[in-house]
Amino acid sequence: MSALLEQLIEGLRVLPGVGAKSAQRMAYHLLERDREGAQRLAERLLAAVEHIRHCAQCRDFSETEVCAICASPSRDRSVLCVVESPADRLAIEQATGYRGLYFVLQGRLSPLDGIGPRQLGLDVLAERLAGGEVRELIIATNSTVEGEATAHYLAQLARQANVKPSRPAQGLPLGGELEYIDRGTLAHAFGSRSEASG
Amino acid sequence: MSALLEQLIEGLRVLPGVGAKSAQRMAYHLLERDREGAQRLAERLLAAVEHIRHCAQCRDFSETEVCAICASPSRDRSVLCVVESPADRLAIEQATGYRGLYFVLQGRLSPLDGIGPRQLGLDVLAERLAGGEVRELIIATNSTVEGEATAHYLAQLARQANVKPSRPAQGLPLGGELEYIDRGTLAHAFGSRSEASG
Repeated sequence: MSALLEQLIEGLRVLPGVGAKSAQRMAYHLLERDREGAQRLAERLLAAVEHIRHCAQCRDFSETEVCAICASPSRDRSVLCVVESPADRLAIEQATGYRGLYFVLQGRLSPLDGIGPRQLGLDVLAERLAGGEVRELIIATNSTVEGEATAHYLAQLARQANVKPSRPAQGLPLGGELEYIDRGTLAHAFGSRSEASG
Repeated sequence: MSALLEQLIEGLRVLPGVGAKSAQRMAYHLLERDREGAQRLAERLLAAVEHIRHCAQCRDFSETEVCAICASPSRDRSVLCVVESPADRLAIEQATGYRGLYFVLQGRLSPLDGIGPRQLGLDVLAERLAGGEVRELIIATNSTVEGEATAHYLAQLARQANVKPSRPAQGLPLGGELEYIDRGTLAHAFGSRSEASG
């Protein structure tokens, strides 16, 4: 096989979820059917790597020192929502009418992997909470074991700075069928039932 | 979201099997965990697009006018194996002891998609068969409907040029694609090829 082709196939394996076979298929596809697309992808990769960094305030990806949301004068600076990843922030932004600011951990506490408070920028967050502008910290980490541990840590951080910590409600998803809900969710939803209206 | 990030996510969708969600995950992964890998991938894409073309003799991908296999003095020039794709050629090369040459169609006859003999380079192949050097044409197209139709056409082409057409033994599972067959089956089928009908 051509050396350049082998290098391309190996290069494609940096993509998550792409093994040897998929990388090979991708390389053949690009070379045979979409050389323009491959060239465009290369240019965009280079531009992204060169220009995209982390927002100095929320740690989300940004081309500018401070991202568009953090810089917006129309957002409510008294509410801060902590999420694990940029994808989580995007999901909240698209689904809810939330008008406060964000803080993106880019991970979760995981001491065994060497990811502690410092790696998640929690020292920066603590300083910000101490600043007095933030009055509520919405902790929207995932409800996994590590996400919950991170949430616990964040709640303590908030209380120390006299900021009110909150968590999005947990329960049955809207439109979900009881039969297909996992046991943990169902048990929790049953345990924390509230009075019905009507 | 950052415009460059959006462009990167859209750019990743040229990859086969990558939808909006996977492209987003890939972009986040590269930016957060492997910027070096992203840069390397970009460079390899550009090098591949610029330098990889088709071998003038077998139509496989090659950096040079004639690929390494076609140029090799140690290959048997009296046997020519026709495959649909470079991946098929690679699979045969890795699994069998085949020492002849190849011809890569880069597709299969599919009149409805506008892919006729000319698009597969069959005019070039016919000339080569007429040259008198080739004595056997191994037709290793996939055993799909279109692959079989292509095989039938190729067998006629061979007979017209007084070249013996053959097919790998029908040990290959029906409807299977050559690229994904296990080596043992492929090697066996190659060893017991028989004369082609048509």
